Amino acid sequence: MVRWEPGAKDRLQTAAIALFLERGYEETTVQDIAAEAGLTERTFFRHYADKREVLFNGGDSYRAVFVDAIRAAPAGRTPFELVTAALVAAEDFFSPERRPWSRKRQRVIDANPALQEREARKRATLGDALDAALVERGVPEPEARLTAEVGAAVFTTAFRQWLAEDEQRPLDEIELELLARLRALMPVGAPA
Amino acid sequence: MVRWEPGAKDRLQTAAIALFLERGYEETTVQDIAAEAGLTERTFFRHYADKREVLFNGGDSYRAVFVDAIRAAPAGRTPFELVTAALVAAEDFFSPERRPWSRKRQRVIDANPALQEREARKRATLGDALDAALVERGVPEPEARLTAEVGAAVFTTAFRQWLAEDEQRPLDEIELELLARLRALMPVGAPA
Repeated sequence: MVRWEPGAKDRLQTAAIALFLERGYEETTVQDIAAEAGLTERTFFRHYADKREVLFNGGDSYRAVFVDAIRAAPAGRTPFELVTAALVAAEDFFSPERRPWSRKRQRVIDANPALQEREARKRATLGDALDAALVERGVPEPEARLTAEVGAAVFTTAFRQWLAEDEQRPLDEIELELLARLRALMPVGAPA
Repeated sequence: MVRWEPGAKDRLQTAAIALFLERGYEETTVQDIAAEAGLTERTFFRHYADKREVLFNGGDSYRAVFVDAIRAAPAGRTPFELVTAALVAAEDFFSPERRPWSRKRQRVIDANPALQEREARKRATLGDALDAALVERGVPEPEARLTAEVGAAVFTTAFRQWLAEDEQRPLDEIELELLARLRALMPVGAPA
């Protein structure tokens, strides 16, 4: 019989990040995490495939926030307006309440090259998801891919800033500021 | 005594990619690669730390092509002109002669999620290298990071197109076309 553990997933996440920061990611085992959370390894594996997934769980719902915003945008929007809507919607996922966790998570990733590879892949799949959503809205290639990659680049830059210890602004405010700066950086006039 | 093997590194690379495509990356061992190349495992390890490095060797010289172009650009260039110079210079690395190898390499990577993580990380370090080179040229943050990430996004999109089987144009031509399309996509006028 499986015993229901209230809040087990959150407790495991809290325990894992504390141990990753204290002992190092490589040095922490699933057994350590379960013990720290006062739970069994079996309970751990009901929630996470492995310890890495504690840091990367939720990737699908994270991408869905961007994609759903593109799907929900009114007709007649330009590719850049669509991707801007997606970036602004990301604030729903990366809320102020989430920021302390995200900062700790980033410290663990910054200390581990293998996790940096996984994180970079997560960024790449965001570009793929934005591209697919733009194509679904009728944006042709290569415009869809280009807009998607630039949107993901702005998100990455804003997200890094959002994680900075002294940064107080919400993510969408940082993203909109960066989009404005990007417009100012681009050469004006007709394309060559 | 170490026996010098003429062209050993290239022979190992050719043997490795043939086996990765034929048997699969995971199924191919260093022993297999060395045997296919008519060389010893010891010779393999003089050139590569492991089989993954056959695919990712040269990452430093690849980044250097971009960075050197930014360093060598005349004074007074805008951030976007600097990153455009870097993108155009990448043609020196991704030459027409390299294209058949790059296409095979991409097929191996596309079939393996762990290699995709490593490849995504390579893309991320390009953004970091461009950012550092722009800062060195006096571009302030966040403009340097933003320009670097957008430059890396354009490169990634162009590189993907360059690898397409039916694509004949050189990389720099594709990059310049995408930069022109990007300018056309961006909203014109003063930043909000």
